[in-house]
Amino acid sequence: MTELVDSYLFSKRRVDEDKHQYASPRELKLAIDELHKALSSPNAVTTDPDALRTYGSSENSYHLASPHSVVVRPASTADVVEVVNISRKYRVPVTAYSGATSLEGHTSGYPSGSICLDMSGMDEILQINETDSDLVCQSGARWEDINEALKAKGIPLFFPLDPGPGATIGGMIGTGCSGTNAVRYGTARAEWFLNLTVVLPNGEVIKTRRRARKSAAGFDSTKLFIGAEGTLGIVTEATLRLAPVIPTKVAMAQFPDVEHAVSAVQEILNTPYGPHIQCIELLDDQMMSAINNAGFIDHPYPVKDTLFFKIQGDPFCIKGTSKAVQAIVKKHGSSRFEFAPTDQEAQDLWQNRKYALPSTMAANPGARCWTTDVCVPVSRLPQLVLETKKDLANAGLRSTIVGHVGDGNFHALMLFHNDDELKSVSDAVHRLVYRALALDGTCTGEHGVGIGKKEYLVDELGEGTVELMRVIKRAVDPLNLLNPGKLYPERREPGKEESHA
Amino acid sequence: MTELVDSYLFSKRRVDEDKHQYASPRELKLAIDELHKALSSPNAVTTDPDALRTYGSSENSYHLASPHSVVVRPASTADVVEVVNISRKYRVPVTAYSGATSLEGHTSGYPSGSICLDMSGMDEILQINETDSDLVCQSGARWEDINEALKAKGIPLFFPLDPGPGATIGGMIGTGCSGTNAVRYGTARAEWFLNLTVVLPNGEVIKTRRRARKSAAGFDSTKLFIGAEGTLGIVTEATLRLAPVIPTKVAMAQFPDVEHAVSAVQEILNTPYGPHIQCIELLDDQMMSAINNAGFIDHPYPVKDTLFFKIQGDPFCIKGTSKAVQAIVKKHGSSRFEFAPTDQEAQDLWQNRKYALPSTMAANPGARCWTTDVCVPVSRLPQLVLETKKDLANAGLRSTIVGHVGDGNFHALMLFHNDDELKSVSDAVHRLVYRALALDGTCTGEHGVGIGKKEYLVDELGEGTVELMRVIKRAVDPLNLLNPGKLYPERREPGKEESHA
Repeated sequence: MTELVDSYLFSKRRVDEDKHQYASPRELKLAIDELHKALSSPNAVTTDPDALRTYGSSENSYHLASPHSVVVRPASTADVVEVVNISRKYRVPVTAYSGATSLEGHTSGYPSGSICLDMSGMDEILQINETDSDLVCQSGARWEDINEALKAKGIPLFFPLDPGPGATIGGMIGTGCSGTNAVRYGTARAEWFLNLTVVLPNGEVIKTRRRARKSAAGFDSTKLFIGAEGTLGIVTEATLRLAPVIPTKVAMAQFPDVEHAVSAVQEILNTPYGPHIQCIELLDDQMMSAINNAGFIDHPYPVKDTLFFKIQGDPFCIKGTSKAVQAIVKKHGSSRFEFAPTDQEAQDLWQNRKYALPSTMAANPGARCWTTDVCVPVSRLPQLVLETKKDLANAGLRSTIVGHVGDGNFHALMLFHNDDELKSVSDAVHRLVYRALALDGTCTGEHGVGIGKKEYLVDELGEGTVELMRVIKRAVDPLNLLNPGKLYPERREPGKEESHA
Repeated sequence: MTELVDSYLFSKRRVDEDKHQYASPRELKLAIDELHKALSSPNAVTTDPDALRTYGSSENSYHLASPHSVVVRPASTADVVEVVNISRKYRVPVTAYSGATSLEGHTSGYPSGSICLDMSGMDEILQINETDSDLVCQSGARWEDINEALKAKGIPLFFPLDPGPGATIGGMIGTGCSGTNAVRYGTARAEWFLNLTVVLPNGEVIKTRRRARKSAAGFDSTKLFIGAEGTLGIVTEATLRLAPVIPTKVAMAQFPDVEHAVSAVQEILNTPYGPHIQCIELLDDQMMSAINNAGFIDHPYPVKDTLFFKIQGDPFCIKGTSKAVQAIVKKHGSSRFEFAPTDQEAQDLWQNRKYALPSTMAANPGARCWTTDVCVPVSRLPQLVLETKKDLANAGLRSTIVGHVGDGNFHALMLFHNDDELKSVSDAVHRLVYRALALDGTCTGEHGVGIGKKEYLVDELGEGTVELMRVIKRAVDPLNLLNPGKLYPERREPGKEESHA
């Protein structure tokens, strides 16, 4: 018994168990042959080298990437079970893949060989329960398509999580995503996913809950898979909770600096009008300059730190809230407050926020862009922005800054033209993360860990918390077959940075 | 390797591992001696037989209960580490305890001996970050005291989870609680807990996150402990997110039957006015009759199924919402709509909802009451209520019904006077649970599993999901020392019911 007590957690013995024996080249070939037999529909299994490379890397990230060995396209949960069973039989890692919008190398291939499980074809809406405000879909469905489908059917409900365009439900679950709406609706880690159908590493299919909105029946098994980046199970279906569509108007305010802008945000959110704020987006002066120079707009804006608001409610609520917001931003030094009273004007104004990435690229022809995010308590955001701007200037780097400022979530779009500048950007991201940690923040607010942020987890959370993650991973996936090499560092090697391709 | 594949999950070998060797009577005595030495402050350790019985059972539940062997009252996280280390050294189970408001035997003692860890003395608010809308406290703090403290300091923020009076943050985390505010603010499984300090079974102290509002940095370790009923770690501190205090008014509407009331609720929640509804509570005709007969009010109400609403917002929002609610309830057959325009009138009207339990008891002198809850998709609630009323009438039982109807959460307060009626109530609860499961619901919406609902988990979730819980429990607490015998059934024994004392 004493032996068990001494060795059960955090022991050296565990480290050896990490050295998994994955499939040999011969076994990998056998696995691929068996996948061909198991998934019989045309194009369900491909080993085309171009596809393997494309699926194994990402245009959005500059982390180490390897091609997959095979790409499979399941059509059902039963197909996924087949794939997971074959993966286990031959010990071939499996990486789930769908919208391919992730930014931290989540879907890259495993160096010794891996199966890419492309879920994007499993994109059906299976059931809409309008009176219960919920919906059941396959995990390859895109959030935008779901909202379009609801609109087309005249159902006045929507799914409020809004990460990058093209993201799918499965990826949103895996990343624990959020988006601009998180100020009002929270993130994927709130209660938008009522129930998940999951294929476990042992091939068993489970449902994490039933369809009731609330349940106190045991561990929160649903949450176990949210943010797990496909390392604990493959989600094939999900029951989503929906929210009523509420009329929305857009406003814009400009400030002398980020500090003034953030103080205004804090005051607004803590008033009784706070819950009417659907989004608050910060665009820094560089971003506004990029918008002016990108050629998408008719009249240039003053180059100042700017907030964009979405305000929601019935006409009376919107009027009251807009009045309150205007008074508060004025108090905090805003020289310009613009409110779009009609839907069309609101849409036009919000376009400017949407132009963030294309404007950044258009204003800097020939450049490539590394997008990263961190998140800090809202009150610490001005310091983070100020110090980061200084640091980027010192490093001679160009970057625009946008942020879901209502949550303290900060995005930098750092530009580079060559390998030297890429190295410089990588170093700046590294410093940005430690700046956020020093302010009681996190290395990622919504993009996830993948490969890119692994090295920061121990410094952010402590060795004990990361080891707890490893303990759970080992218990659920003892052969380490689901998306190995992502989410947390296998071993602690202080000071060692990832190298970037 | 094949052996590992075959045996790693759901294997028979695991069953044997459940037969833990807990402390012998001699070892238990040594453990208690060591606890006396480790926690030196007066009254920190007691073995008074009355205390052991009181702490080991609950007036709120009628499940099997055993006295604890010792009650300890830690003053710090370091004290909790000492207790957990002694528990592990001598293999004595530890049950966390604080507000003692739980209803399913969560805190009862373990038959072969257990340490009751009374956290209620660790009730300090450690830090209030008003601008970030968060607060750090010890886990023994009561939610009511926290909200009183904020009010006393003139801080216009509050913590919106409102389970039973006297509940503490630690218990609310353990149970994954909710309350009347869940319609608007969600439950403990949403994002109200930003970070937890937890003592793991191995004695290590971890923090699950930092103070940023959002993080996508790995598994949702915070959620691992929410709803875990003290089986995975002892929570000693928590960072809570706060919400702005918003003016609230109260309204009441009466209906010909529950079906009409629920249809009205569904329609209201799916309109753009839905987010202004803070609470919607259903009181059935029996409950209204009990309120009339209990002697707390001046004028009796018509004995009809009734909804109580809390509507929040600025005066314009409340006016608009109240108008919309009135039109909808009228459409759904409400003959009476009462709106309390002033704060005092609102408070008076809401009192009637608050009188639910005392009115039930006062109207039935000499009776005792078994309170239970289930939860179903909102559209299934009328069928659940109708069938349950019939079933209770057939069984000759008296019960009032109240429900957080906006969430489909249903509470029955079943009355009994003797052991025969208690058996009859127990059987009726059993049938109620299976009725909820048949409607795609859960055996508990907010009270948790404890001992009382263990037997239903496999039928609700499937053997695979429950085994996943066991796998995680074994990995984190391999000696099964934290609150053993709660939360999930150790082994599946179909058809076997718990016996009730």
